[in-house]
Parts: sequence; C-alpha cells; structure tokens
Amino acid sequence: MNRDAALDHARDHRDRFLTELMPALSIPSVSTLSEHGADMQRMANWLAGRLSSAGLEHVTLLGTEGNPILYADHLHAPGKPTVLVYGHYDVQPADPLDEWDSPPFEPEIRGDYVFARGASDMKGQILAQLQAVEALLAVDALPVNLKYLIEGDEEIGSPPLPGFMARNKERLACDVVLNCDSGIHAPDQPSIVYSLRGLAYFEIEVTGPAQDLHSGVFGGSILNPINALCALLAGMHDADGRITLPEFYDKVRPLDEEERALLRRVPHSDAEWLAASGAPDIYGEAGYSTVERVGARPSLDINGIRGGFISVGAKTVLAARASAKFSMRLVPDQQGREAEAQLRAYLEAHVPSACRWTLKTHSMGPGAVMRRDSAHMRAAVDALASVFGREPFFKREGASVPVAGWVQELLHVDSIMLGFGLPNDNIHGPNERQYLPNLYKGIETYIHFLTNLGQ
Amino acid sequence: MNRDAALDHARDHRDRFLTELMPALSIPSVSTLSEHGADMQRMANWLAGRLSSAGLEHVTLLGTEGNPILYADHLHAPGKPTVLVYGHYDVQPADPLDEWDSPPFEPEIRGDYVFARGASDMKGQILAQLQAVEALLAVDALPVNLKYLIEGDEEIGSPPLPGFMARNKERLACDVVLNCDSGIHAPDQPSIVYSLRGLAYFEIEVTGPAQDLHSGVFGGSILNPINALCALLAGMHDADGRITLPEFYDKVRPLDEEERALLRRVPHSDAEWLAASGAPDIYGEAGYSTVERVGARPSLDINGIRGGFISVGAKTVLAARASAKFSMRLVPDQQGREAEAQLRAYLEAHVPSACRWTLKTHSMGPGAVMRRDSAHMRAAVDALASVFGREPFFKREGASVPVAGWVQELLHVDSIMLGFGLPNDNIHGPNERQYLPNLYKGIETYIHFLTNLGQ
Repeated sequence: MNRDAALDHARDHRDRFLTELMPALSIPSVSTLSEHGADMQRMANWLAGRLSSAGLEHVTLLGTEGNPILYADHLHAPGKPTVLVYGHYDVQPADPLDEWDSPPFEPEIRGDYVFARGASDMKGQILAQLQAVEALLAVDALPVNLKYLIEGDEEIGSPPLPGFMARNKERLACDVVLNCDSGIHAPDQPSIVYSLRGLAYFEIEVTGPAQDLHSGVFGGSILNPINALCALLAGMHDADGRITLPEFYDKVRPLDEEERALLRRVPHSDAEWLAASGAPDIYGEAGYSTVERVGARPSLDINGIRGGFISVGAKTVLAARASAKFSMRLVPDQQGREAEAQLRAYLEAHVPSACRWTLKTHSMGPGAVMRRDSAHMRAAVDALASVFGREPFFKREGASVPVAGWVQELLHVDSIMLGFGLPNDNIHGPNERQYLPNLYKGIETYIHFLTNLGQ
Repeated sequence: MNRDAALDHARDHRDRFLTELMPALSIPSVSTLSEHGADMQRMANWLAGRLSSAGLEHVTLLGTEGNPILYADHLHAPGKPTVLVYGHYDVQPADPLDEWDSPPFEPEIRGDYVFARGASDMKGQILAQLQAVEALLAVDALPVNLKYLIEGDEEIGSPPLPGFMARNKERLACDVVLNCDSGIHAPDQPSIVYSLRGLAYFEIEVTGPAQDLHSGVFGGSILNPINALCALLAGMHDADGRITLPEFYDKVRPLDEEERALLRRVPHSDAEWLAASGAPDIYGEAGYSTVERVGARPSLDINGIRGGFISVGAKTVLAARASAKFSMRLVPDQQGREAEAQLRAYLEAHVPSACRWTLKTHSMGPGAVMRRDSAHMRAAVDALASVFGREPFFKREGASVPVAGWVQELLHVDSIMLGFGLPNDNIHGPNERQYLPNLYKGIETYIHFLTNLGQ
C-alpha cells in the first residue's frame, strides 16, 4: 500500500530530517528587527531550495511590501482536492538572551528536544510537512494537489498578507488550507483547534493641561488625564465582566448546547489554569466556563499604561498626558473595523470635554471558527487517531492566527490547524524547544492526512 | 514714632539687604539630594550667623533625624504677644539645569528681579523678615516677643518636624505663628491665605499572574492587574466628581454662605485658569465654583501610573503587575490617617479575589483653616493695607503647607501666612525669581505687622 511505503520512507529518513532541521534553525530570521533583513532573505532562499528538493514545482519568491512570500505547487492529481499549505519562516526575537541555556540560533539537541528559536514556532512544523510530502512523492503516492504559501511576517502581524491574498486569489485557489502553525494538547493526547479569536490592538492618548501642573494648586478643578484615562478604560467592562462598547456583542456567534457539551469534554482544570498563570483566582464574564471564556467569548485587556511620575519617591503632579495600549480578542462574527467603530463611539460618548483624546489602531486580524463536520476535518481527525492511537478532542483557542480568518474571507475555505507543538514549548520565550517524537509523529500524521484527503 | 524710625532704618539699609541676600542664594541647600549634606550644614551655619547679627538671642542649631532646625528668640516684651516665626532654609533641586538663563546658585539681578533657586521659596522671605526685626531692634522698637523655628526639610515633607514640635512644645509655646512661606496675589493686590489643604500620598501595586501572560491564551479568564487597577482608581470618583471612599466627606467642614460670599470676591476667572493650565475645559465636583473646589473641597489625583508594555509598538501581554501613585488633597477637618483607613476600607471592599494589592503611604500632612476674625489676622490685614495702600483679600489655597496644621494640632495656635512671593515666581521650576519691590514692601509689612501686634 502506498501509504505504508511513504510511512516507511519517512521513518528511514528520520536522521536526514534532523540533519536538515539544523541549518534552518541556525538562521536568525527575526522579522521585527530590521538588522535581520539579510537573514530573512537567506531564510527564504534556503526554504525555496528545500521546497524544490522535496519535489515541489514553480517555487517562487514573491516580493511584498514586507518580506518575500514563498509560493510553490504540485498540481498533478486531477479531480482530487487542492490543499494550500500555510506556514511562516520568520521567528520572534530571542531576547532575553541571558535566559537561554544554549544560544538561540545554535540549535542543540538535549534528550528528546531540540532547543532553538523557531524550533516549535514553526520551522520544525514546516520541515515535518515537507518531509511528509517528499516521502509521498518518493513512492509516487501524493494523492492531492498542493500549493504552498509561506510568509515572512507572521510574527509582526502579517501586514502584507491580506493584500497579497486579495491580489492572488486565483493562484491560491484551493479546497482547504493546511495550517501547520499549531500544536496538540499533549504527546499522548492529540487535539484539533477549530476556533481562533481575532485581534484588534489600539493605543489611546488622553491629554489635558499643556504641561504637568501642581496637584495642590489645580487638583479638583482641572481634570487629570490619568484619572480620565482610568475611568475610560474601566468603563469598558461592566460588573459582570462584559464589555460595554455599544453593539459589541451583536455579532458574537452564540454557543449552542451541542458545542458547550463538546467544550466540557476538553481536558481542563481551573486549578491547573491558576497554577499555570500564578493568579490567585479565576475571573471572567458571568455565565461562562474558563474554556468558553477563552475560546468563544471576546476579551479586552490593557496591555500597557503610563502617565505622570513613575520614578522612586513621590511627586505631586497633575499630569499633562496619559496613554495606554489595549487590545480586544474578537470572536466570529465580530469584525475588527466594526469593533474600532464601536470603540470610537464609546469614546465620543464618554470622554469629558475637560480632556482630549487620540486613538491609534496598531493591528487587526479576524477570528475564525472552522466546521467540524467537513470531510477535510474528518481526514485530520482520522490521521491523528491513526498515529497517536487516540481520537483528538476539539478545542477552541484564545489566541489569534489571523490567516485562518483571511482565508475564510478571501478564499472561502476553512483551515485545518494541524501542527505538533506543545503548550510548554516556550514559544516566544527563552529556551524555545520542540519535542522530537512529536515531529516524527507529525510527519506520519501529514502522510495520513493527505492520503485520507485523496481517497 | 518708633514705627517710622524702623521703616526709615529699613529703607536706609536696602542696599545692604540685597548684598546680604546673595551669599544665602549661593548655597545649594537642596534637602532631597544627599550629596548636598555639607551645603545644608553650611546654610544652617550661615543663617545662624545672620540671626545673631540681627540681634536675636539663644541662636541654636538643634539636631534632628534630618537636617538641623534653627532656634532663636528675643523675649523682652513682658505682657506682649509671643510670635513664632516659621521658615525653611532648604530649596528644591534645580534641574532641568539647561532651562535656566543663569546658573541657579549664582544669583543674578535682572531688572526688578533676582533670579536664583530659593529666591522666592523662601530665602528672600526669611531675610526680609530678619531685616524688619533688625530695624525694629536698631531703633529699640520691637514690641513683641519673638521665637524662630527654621527647618531644613520642608521641600521633602518635613519628616522630622512634627516629632520635634511634639518634643519642644514648651520651647515653641507662642500666641501666633508668623509663617513667611507664602505670597500675595499680585504686586498691586495683596492677599492673605487663610486655608490650606492637607496631603495624603499613596502608592498602590496590584498583582495577579506570576509573570506576564499571553493575552490571547489567557485573556478573559485571568484578571489583568492593569484592568483591575484602572477600575479601582476610577471607582474612587463618582459621576459628580465626588470621591467615593466610605465616610470620606463626613468631617469635611462645609462652607457657609458668608464664606462663599467671601470667596466670590477672590479675583478669579475660569478663562484665565484654563489659559494658565492649558486644559480644554473646567472640571470638578458638582455644585462648587473653581475657587471653592481648589480651596475648600478635597481632591484625588493619580500622580503616576505604570504597567505592562509601554515601549514603541504592540505587545499582546496580560501584565503580571501594575502600580500607581496617587494623592489626596484634604481639607479641615479631614485627617490623613482617617483618609488612609477609608482608602483601605474601599480597597478591601472592591479589590477582586482574582488579584492582590499592597498599599504604601508616602507622606501625610494636615490641612488648616485659620480664623479670619482674630487680632493677629487684623494686624496682618492692616499691615498689608498700610504698605500696599489696598486691603488684602482672603484666599483659600489648594496646595499644602503642613506646618500650619501641625502648629494648630501641637501648639494650638493659628498661623498668619505672610510672605511676598508671586504666583509667577517659578518656584520649584527653572528661572525661579523674586520681585524685589515686593521684598522691600515685605520688610515694611513685617515692621507694621509686629508693631500692630504689640499695640
């Protein structure tokens, strides 16, 4: 059977897979730091070579206003589904460097892990997927059409991507997206994320006096912008933990009883959640469980705030200005632009005449909920069950992967989130790592997934 | 007449007065900076010499846990009132140095002003008062008993002073305090401050997670300490601009109609107040004018706030901690310790179980309202009217001079706030200055005041 031949091929080439991973992890492709511009190009070139050597065709580096996007395809399965494989070749910055046990761009294998920036997020995942395709091609068993879209700006919010996708709808046309930027619950418990929250990130500045004033001379007669900012931000939640922006919940897709039952099956314990966070108590919108709050309900967090005198000691100042960064996690079918309009309406209604305000929008990305009953999803569930010996559970994810929303909006397809990171891989932090047995199982899962899809 | 002889003596010695002021203004007696410890001692010694040369007796430098306190007296008017003269010989730091047009500790006379740190706040005032006493003694016309208390820690909140006063009640016993740390409304319009607000300064820290969390993964299920801090601070005011701490207004002395009428006579324009502050609109507690809000009503301002990610750009962090400095201006008969207890009661009632808090008290000082109908006050009003040719108006001051409250509490006497600074002297800022014609009139006013008191 072709599937078995591909699995054998992949197992026989595990050593080469590991050898190949090292140069990819050695390139510091940090998209947010301009000094790594040459590294970004180097990484894109390296990956283009790897796509070609895996047997993919039309490997192309497409220029964008950001880093180049890699395209490739293999379109020799007429009548079979076309899968668009999504990934990103950029990584987060590595600081704080002194907290790494080995240098972030000198990958090191210790026990069952490889340690390096990008090992889990997500060079390991991309190479595992390519290894699966290479194995299928090697035994002439690739049963679907493939396209690749690998970007270099994911870690900074993918500014060029929506425009690129809008301009390249035909080139990217597909039946389903395989998004490898994901993970599973535990090495012995696979899971599939079928919902992601969106993000809308803002910065507000409130100003009042022309300069800092003496809080005794003026206090009580001139509105302090810090007082005003706190009141504005605090007023965005009510006592039940609900967000007060006008019409904010109008488009929030409600959870039906079937889905609530599904989410109750997610292995979750509030005690472990508290232990993981270190917080003293659970919090959230009244009427919802933690799993529901994080996965299916929007949230609004102040990410940073500053104003006035913050050095050691005391200064009786009535500040001239105060500012805060804050962001919302949105859920389908909330739109970032609508949330921004609701926010502006709230501010227009609530900012007192005694101060002024400006609002800046930093970035936005849509949320997404994927169908759980599609043939594509079934192919993924079966693939995970075949390799891990256990059915995956379905999970909503609180974080944002905006491309999942963009492919719904622009290409009208769902994403299958299929990657093999683990919750404790320290992505974005020091000592990022990837559990290698997961990657080996990942290669096999991708082989099963593509084979299932082609049947 | 003795009064006239003293006035003539003072006028004849104006040049010497100005010459004498220069060395006092040249000593950088910055109490908050430990590197100026020797300068503090030098300033205290210089001033002790000046007290002696003016003819005062028992000039003593008394050690405290802070800088030394200068005591002196002249007690040769049996049956006449005893006046305790209050002043301070320390000054604010001079930074930002590059905004000074001449070095802050190289006093320079330009036009009718002398420019130097401490010129107005308050070495000029102390020396003017001493000049008046020297003149009265020179013509054998000092009609009252005098005591001096000149401290070196006023600009850092006078930490040693209440204890010193409590331990030296007998030594400091008096009928009235002459507090020279004050000013008048304008060169052609004298005024007397008869009310000062108190101060209670706090710092709060709210903590939650053990470390910063991903706002997508945890947002909506773990309380963000910045969100919590904003809600706690915002909740301290209601929609009418009133402070919500329990029992906060219970001891606030209400304004009666007579006093409200008095305050309506204070020259004040909201338009000028806005122009001076640069703020876009007036603000404050419903039901009160600006003059009342600043002078007779308590206020609460956030002096500084910080938390989370405040650099350029965007980071989707749910912060581990947030903190704020905030302070209340209190009015008689509010007590700082009671306000602190009210604050703690509010926090205990309102901080959610999902975060923790700590509160630090930075400093406290009482407010004070002085009787306007006393013989001492009448003596000051008449003295100002004699010299300026115009009755002073009575004024409540929003800022804090805690010693006025302490002498009420510990010595059971009122203070007469009689100094000759101007609102635009730039005290605490660059290019501090003193209008010299005011100081000359000040010397004469002090002669009139002491003479009036002795009649």
